[in-house]
Amino acid sequence: MAAAEPAAPQPTPEEEAALARLYADFAAQNLTPLWTQLGDLMPAHPAPQARPHVWEWQTLYPLARRAGELVPVGRGGERRAIALANPGLGGRPYITPTLWAAIQYLGPRETAPEHRHSQNAFRFVVEGEGVWTVVDGDPVAMRRGDFLLTPGWHFHGHHNTTDAPMAWIDGLDIPFVHYTDTAFFEFGADEVSDRATPDLSRAERLWAHPGLRPLSRLERTAASPIAAYRWEHTDRALTQQLELEDEGHPATVEPGHAAVRYTNPTTGGDVMPTIRAEFHRLRAGSATATRREVGSAVYQVFDGTGTLVLDGAEHRVATGDLVVVPSWCACRIEAESGLDLFRFSDTPIFEGLHQYRAAVEEDPR
Amino acid sequence: MAAAEPAAPQPTPEEEAALARLYADFAAQNLTPLWTQLGDLMPAHPAPQARPHVWEWQTLYPLARRAGELVPVGRGGERRAIALANPGLGGRPYITPTLWAAIQYLGPRETAPEHRHSQNAFRFVVEGEGVWTVVDGDPVAMRRGDFLLTPGWHFHGHHNTTDAPMAWIDGLDIPFVHYTDTAFFEFGADEVSDRATPDLSRAERLWAHPGLRPLSRLERTAASPIAAYRWEHTDRALTQQLELEDEGHPATVEPGHAAVRYTNPTTGGDVMPTIRAEFHRLRAGSATATRREVGSAVYQVFDGTGTLVLDGAEHRVATGDLVVVPSWCACRIEAESGLDLFRFSDTPIFEGLHQYRAAVEEDPR
Amino acid sequence: MAAAEPAAPQPTPEEEAALARLYADFAAQNLTPLWTQLGDLMPAHPAPQARPHVWEWQTLYPLARRAGELVPVGRGGERRAIALANPGLGGRPYITPTLWAAIQYLGPRETAPEHRHSQNAFRFVVEGEGVWTVVDGDPVAMRRGDFLLTPGWHFHGHHNTTDAPMAWIDGLDIPFVHYTDTAFFEFGADEVSDRATPDLSRAERLWAHPGLRPLSRLERTAASPIAAYRWEHTDRALTQQLELEDEGHPATVEPGHAAVRYTNPTTGGDVMPTIRAEFHRLRAGSATATRREVGSAVYQVFDGTGTLVLDGAEHRVATGDLVVVPSWCACRIEAESGLDLFRFSDTPIFEGLHQYRAAVEEDPR
Amino acid sequence: MAAAEPAAPQPTPEEEAALARLYADFAAQNLTPLWTQLGDLMPAHPAPQARPHVWEWQTLYPLARRAGELVPVGRGGERRAIALANPGLGGRPYITPTLWAAIQYLGPRETAPEHRHSQNAFRFVVEGEGVWTVVDGDPVAMRRGDFLLTPGWHFHGHHNTTDAPMAWIDGLDIPFVHYTDTAFFEFGADEVSDRATPDLSRAERLWAHPGLRPLSRLERTAASPIAAYRWEHTDRALTQQLELEDEGHPATVEPGHAAVRYTNPTTGGDVMPTIRAEFHRLRAGSATATRREVGSAVYQVFDGTGTLVLDGAEHRVATGDLVVVPSWCACRIEAESGLDLFRFSDTPIFEGLHQYRAAVEEDPR
Repeated sequence: MAAAEPAAPQPTPEEEAALARLYADFAAQNLTPLWTQLGDLMPAHPAPQARPHVWEWQTLYPLARRAGELVPVGRGGERRAIALANPGLGGRPYITPTLWAAIQYLGPRETAPEHRHSQNAFRFVVEGEGVWTVVDGDPVAMRRGDFLLTPGWHFHGHHNTTDAPMAWIDGLDIPFVHYTDTAFFEFGADEVSDRATPDLSRAERLWAHPGLRPLSRLERTAASPIAAYRWEHTDRALTQQLELEDEGHPATVEPGHAAVRYTNPTTGGDVMPTIRAEFHRLRAGSATATRREVGSAVYQVFDGTGTLVLDGAEHRVATGDLVVVPSWCACRIEAESGLDLFRFSDTPIFEGLHQYRAAVEEDPR
Repeated sequence: MAAAEPAAPQPTPEEEAALARLYADFAAQNLTPLWTQLGDLMPAHPAPQARPHVWEWQTLYPLARRAGELVPVGRGGERRAIALANPGLGGRPYITPTLWAAIQYLGPRETAPEHRHSQNAFRFVVEGEGVWTVVDGDPVAMRRGDFLLTPGWHFHGHHNTTDAPMAWIDGLDIPFVHYTDTAFFEFGADEVSDRATPDLSRAERLWAHPGLRPLSRLERTAASPIAAYRWEHTDRALTQQLELEDEGHPATVEPGHAAVRYTNPTTGGDVMPTIRAEFHRLRAGSATATRREVGSAVYQVFDGTGTLVLDGAEHRVATGDLVVVPSWCACRIEAESGLDLFRFSDTPIFEGLHQYRAAVEEDPR
Repeated sequence: MAAAEPAAPQPTPEEEAALARLYADFAAQNLTPLWTQLGDLMPAHPAPQARPHVWEWQTLYPLARRAGELVPVGRGGERRAIALANPGLGGRPYITPTLWAAIQYLGPRETAPEHRHSQNAFRFVVEGEGVWTVVDGDPVAMRRGDFLLTPGWHFHGHHNTTDAPMAWIDGLDIPFVHYTDTAFFEFGADEVSDRATPDLSRAERLWAHPGLRPLSRLERTAASPIAAYRWEHTDRALTQQLELEDEGHPATVEPGHAAVRYTNPTTGGDVMPTIRAEFHRLRAGSATATRREVGSAVYQVFDGTGTLVLDGAEHRVATGDLVVVPSWCACRIEAESGLDLFRFSDTPIFEGLHQYRAAVEEDPR
Repeated sequence: MAAAEPAAPQPTPEEEAALARLYADFAAQNLTPLWTQLGDLMPAHPAPQARPHVWEWQTLYPLARRAGELVPVGRGGERRAIALANPGLGGRPYITPTLWAAIQYLGPRETAPEHRHSQNAFRFVVEGEGVWTVVDGDPVAMRRGDFLLTPGWHFHGHHNTTDAPMAWIDGLDIPFVHYTDTAFFEFGADEVSDRATPDLSRAERLWAHPGLRPLSRLERTAASPIAAYRWEHTDRALTQQLELEDEGHPATVEPGHAAVRYTNPTTGGDVMPTIRAEFHRLRAGSATATRREVGSAVYQVFDGTGTLVLDGAEHRVATGDLVVVPSWCACRIEAESGLDLFRFSDTPIFEGLHQYRAAVEEDPR
């Protein structure tokens, strides 16, 4: 919006004084005029305070390790998680206004005690293994490439069964839930409730079969019952999309760009009500179109090197790096090597509220 | 309903004559009184004309082979399919009022030409292999234990690539579509449009990954895009349910009874709008509860021996046998050996219309 | 479909004998070949047995009155309802394969006892008043132009509070429910459970306010909770559509053709799961396009005269006449005077099952 | 949550220094530890910064009138709207974190120019008349008791056709849209696009008929197409609920408490995706239960006097007063006279995201 003040003849000194008294009386009565701030409140298009930013894995991981040496994990602080704080959001531990992203670090043989909360959570593993997250009593192995769910109000704790530390990424809707005053939290057991270390969780044994659902579970659930989306399935799906493209069949999002969305098999929709998660694979040398969309997103490079062009600025990334893309920021991804990217966003919130918009821009080059 | 005539004093001869004239005048005007037939039209509970019945595979298969020797397959008749005609339905080729079930037979090197129709169809393979069904140009291998979809208005043809014949079961909603006057049909190519013989269809390569959907296909579709549900996945899902039961976790429908429903990954619902399909596995010696439900169902024994108790009558079955269970018929299944059963029904029609009911009966013994 | 037999060389006498034996063996085993009847079973487009037909009110009403003199109403026969039997459906009391339409007649002071059934029912009143239908204990006045609901499994009875008879039209899904074996029925009280005669039912007082729903009733219900859609609202809505058209605003279906659909305020969808109901008003001299649609429909002329052109044949109609339009029958309506038409159909069944299709034809003149 | 720091032995000075270096390095890398702020971020139940508060109409209205004398309305500032700023929200013009409420004032013959925005808006009129709001070219009269919609992305302007000023309440989702970076805005005409002053908008003539929808408008729409919910309908619906209660029939929310929800007739759901609106009527001397619910709400007293007990504190209110109830605040309403209350809230956001909870408390007295 252009002008923030109504066009009007120059006020007299008496008028100015009367206006000042009016504004003071407004303030005294907890009132604020719209006309002095319309442009900020209601911009022509989204004008986020959040900024595009990259956190490098080679910086993140050593800091997490130092935290592992200095800070115990346990009841009260609950998790050794270090949040990525968007530099535009005034120091709050939010990667976007709605999303939380953190690196979580668990030392050898450590346990993060059980609790549950209304916030939806997931983990994504870019390296390492040996931790089991126990979700409502079901032990779920965490391994490289796996995407793991802890939907709202499910008890969960983690324990490291090995002599090596492990770190991974947590994604949650903490900022959204905090802002909207919808948070509930409850402590659970100090230890994880089942210390078994199976390869597959019970949830996967019930649910991770393509197109098949157990007859004993026919309800639609708010979140996906598949506790773990394993790398082998994700990798195979992406490989087959690119092979289909090679054979001349429509399968990819755009040339050289394969992608899957993690979904809730009881609905076909997103894994959790507030969070969308996807995995993208770009062939070496390929690039996406430049896209804007309502809602904010975070990428983690799973493998390879490339460049994210965000509102025109180039950001080079390598394995493990995390990148935040604010709402309506123009985003283009260029793969140098083949590039594998995990992505999550808050889009389901806005699709459900009919606030979602997207635009594809002309290639600027 | 008890009485079909309203309770009334005995009519006089004059009244009887007047009534006869009235009924004749009704008939002349294409009118029919309700009061003479209420009980039949509106019974206290479903009173199907369709009857429980078993067709034995050892009878069916040789008849299909004789048809293979005597009747060519091709344009016009289109398919060498022999329908199971419920003995209660007056000779119409309907296994229930809504469902069609047939054995289809394709000789060595034969082709069934392409066509499409509004009727929804599937195939289930109880033995053999070597035929590819080509659905909208996508070749889909048919092998023992596979469940294969041809949803309404998809072109499809079949061809046998081997020197041996192959037979399988077709299930369709032909009677329902016929009765409701909603049928459309179109001829396609005389040959199948792609003679490739891949292990996996393109549909599976895009879609048969647990909880993952291609980002290039985000619409909800009326029918499942998974062309083939492979036996290895079905078998593994059932095995894991029984293992979970052994470990003390809830997973099965009832003790000793594992089951999966084939679903549409874009919705979590049934594979096609009019047809539900499931696979059931009973441990040796186990039995289901006695259940009634609105809507009709067909079972095919995939493996093993057992007994279906239908409205109290025992029907012994073995591999390949087909059994029809009419609406509201009390059904109990007893496994002698371990018993694997494919099942399909018209239930989605009635769930959507809020006409569905089910009841579990006390064990009669 | 063209040929119903596969093209093949002329069989030898031996082959013919073998084929005859095969067909006999099929019959003995309750089997029927597809190839001898494909064209009938799976036509190129719907080929209903039901035929377009008109029942004249001036014939119907006197027959109903004669029934009123000769046939008592009461427990057993339950209703003095005379069904319109489509001349193409072999004498069954079905106006289409899915729909029941009947004239119901209640003499002075008579009562039709309470019962409930899974079939969905409505009444539409083309003339008269003085009967209350009592639906789950709520007395609902019946007056000219009113559309009244008795959704499945609601107890209901009727009683005539006056010294004059009254007749109206019943519409139900009896044939569909009968064919699909989904019928349940239960007797209720011999008398109506509340003999009050209020102008408005309790259901209307709770629900018949535009865009407002009671906070004590927030569930979605399978059927509309508005027991009565009053003529004054229907008439006003149609009048305003035509006035908007006169003022140059889009409001009508096509020039001169106003129409409303009766809906369920808890969903915005059809009043009952299996039945759609609408009211149409054509200006004098106007006509609709020629339309075909999947599913069958019944019109009753509420007021005026005109012509229905059904598959090319002209049928002149006047107030009270009922007309059946089978599935996929081409239908054009021409108004002589202004023409008010009540219409009901089975379309919701087919929309939900993704079987619905419609086509608008070029004006043939 | 109890402790915000993990329980641990007292650190040594060296450890303290190392920790301080670690926290500094975190800050330098835009990182923030979870363990120092878990309790604030993830409380045991919602702990809003927003506070319960009352704005008195007798204070609000004179301030709006003074603004009318001093501040022109027109392009740029667009609206003479004075926002109610929750005293807990640091001076931002938000009545809750998600909702905007303002008094808007339009002097005699003034016009507020047309624009559109992605924010959803409504108006509610507690006194006065003579302004028409023109929504996508459709003039909508504003009168006492009316609830008027301007859903997102509809052009709208207002003009006062009289020689008297008029003030009303605006409700929008501005804070939510601002926080989530989903705002779009576009200027329209400087004048309203249709200066006609009809009693009923075209939207009402098409849509405001109970249970009837125009056949020319069959799509589900994100927001209600009923531009205006008139007082006469609201009042009648509430009156009839209380009469039904008097007659012994279930109709009210609780004894003496009638209420309606304004709904979208194309879905049966809320009028707009982010905003719920209701009208409540309490009999003199009655009271509601004490309720908490997730999400924030605003009440305006339409008529009468009473008390809102919010987290135990009593707030006396009279006609025109506005009261904000933050998320999870315990709320009980006591009517002195009969009490009519308009209410709006952000609940639909949370219901769709499965974050909604509510609780009814024991009467504390």
